[in-house]
Amino acid sequence: MSRVTTVPEKDRLNAQITFAVEIDKLKRIIRRNLLMDGSRRENDAEHSWYVAMLAMIFAEHAPPGTDIQRVVAMLMVHDLVEIDAGDTFVHDPVAVAAQAEAERAAADRIFALLPADQAAGLRGLWDEFEARETPEARFARALDRFAPLLANHNTQGGVWPLFKVTAEQVMRNVRLIEEGSPSLGAYAHDLVRRSVSKGYLSE
Amino acid sequence: MSRVTTVPEKDRLNAQITFAVEIDKLKRIIRRNLLMDGSRRENDAEHSWYVAMLAMIFAEHAPPGTDIQRVVAMLMVHDLVEIDAGDTFVHDPVAVAAQAEAERAAADRIFALLPADQAAGLRGLWDEFEARETPEARFARALDRFAPLLANHNTQGGVWPLFKVTAEQVMRNVRLIEEGSPSLGAYAHDLVRRSVSKGYLSE
Repeated sequence: MSRVTTVPEKDRLNAQITFAVEIDKLKRIIRRNLLMDGSRRENDAEHSWYVAMLAMIFAEHAPPGTDIQRVVAMLMVHDLVEIDAGDTFVHDPVAVAAQAEAERAAADRIFALLPADQAAGLRGLWDEFEARETPEARFARALDRFAPLLANHNTQGGVWPLFKVTAEQVMRNVRLIEEGSPSLGAYAHDLVRRSVSKGYLSE
Repeated sequence: MSRVTTVPEKDRLNAQITFAVEIDKLKRIIRRNLLMDGSRRENDAEHSWYVAMLAMIFAEHAPPGTDIQRVVAMLMVHDLVEIDAGDTFVHDPVAVAAQAEAERAAADRIFALLPADQAAGLRGLWDEFEARETPEARFARALDRFAPLLANHNTQGGVWPLFKVTAEQVMRNVRLIEEGSPSLGAYAHDLVRRSVSKGYLSE
């Protein structure tokens, strides 16, 4: 291996194991949306698997040249900060604003459990996801918003009525989807229209 | 895009959406092992996320030249067949033998929901994982066995006493870990030794 390091191999492996044990906690962070059968709310770990799968399935809906493997890696780590900072409901603007600082502090703590070179790599993926400046980050964000839209549509509105979410609020997410993928954005737009016409979502 | 197809774009997208809705069911397939805090049993979707993360974290423990992004993709899809075939306890040889046919039938049905080119790609990943002939498949299998070992060790034996699992049975998994990664195999061997000395596992 060409990796250059002064850390003994055993310390490196122990740091990797510590991180592996820590991130198991993502399975206990509960999101707002339901599974597609409506049986329970989703957790962040299964959500992360799901959106990374969507990146593989919908790869051709990313702009040409998008590095899909980077999108997959980004989506794998995008919610790790919620181990400390918790999940934030995207339709709650006050919570979203307060969340930014808590998530940065969480990133500082959690990624630093890894050996420095790996910490920098995963932190870089998270920073890129948050900045939303690359096609990879915008496509990842699109899928992160597309998944709950699909789940809510497939559960007769899911948690939309409970949290009094309106079509206008959901359309803000549709615009984020369009930014990352015009074709998925068009599909999402149509889903919202169908949700409104079925009464899952109020205008 | 250079993809050659005679299927209209809209049918393609609809097939991808059907597959996306179908695989949400993986979140409801329950495995034997517990989360690291012992609070509940793990489901296949969060397990798939977890082992794909392990591939990223422990990449340097794979044999030189291993394509880690292929390992990640393989681990993302490796349990999809359990949507139909259910989870099989690795320490139950009768169940393991009966499972093979059910899993093949599940693969035939589930991957075929996708457009043919994508179905062939994901089915190829699953076949490769099952055949365990490439370094990628052997490393993926090692991580698939390493994760529950780590979880059981970190929950004072977890489900080992409940299912009367012995150190000898766990050592069979350690050999699979060694096959995919000598250094993780050595660590796993040590974990088993520590589990026995702490009384988590009987000899």
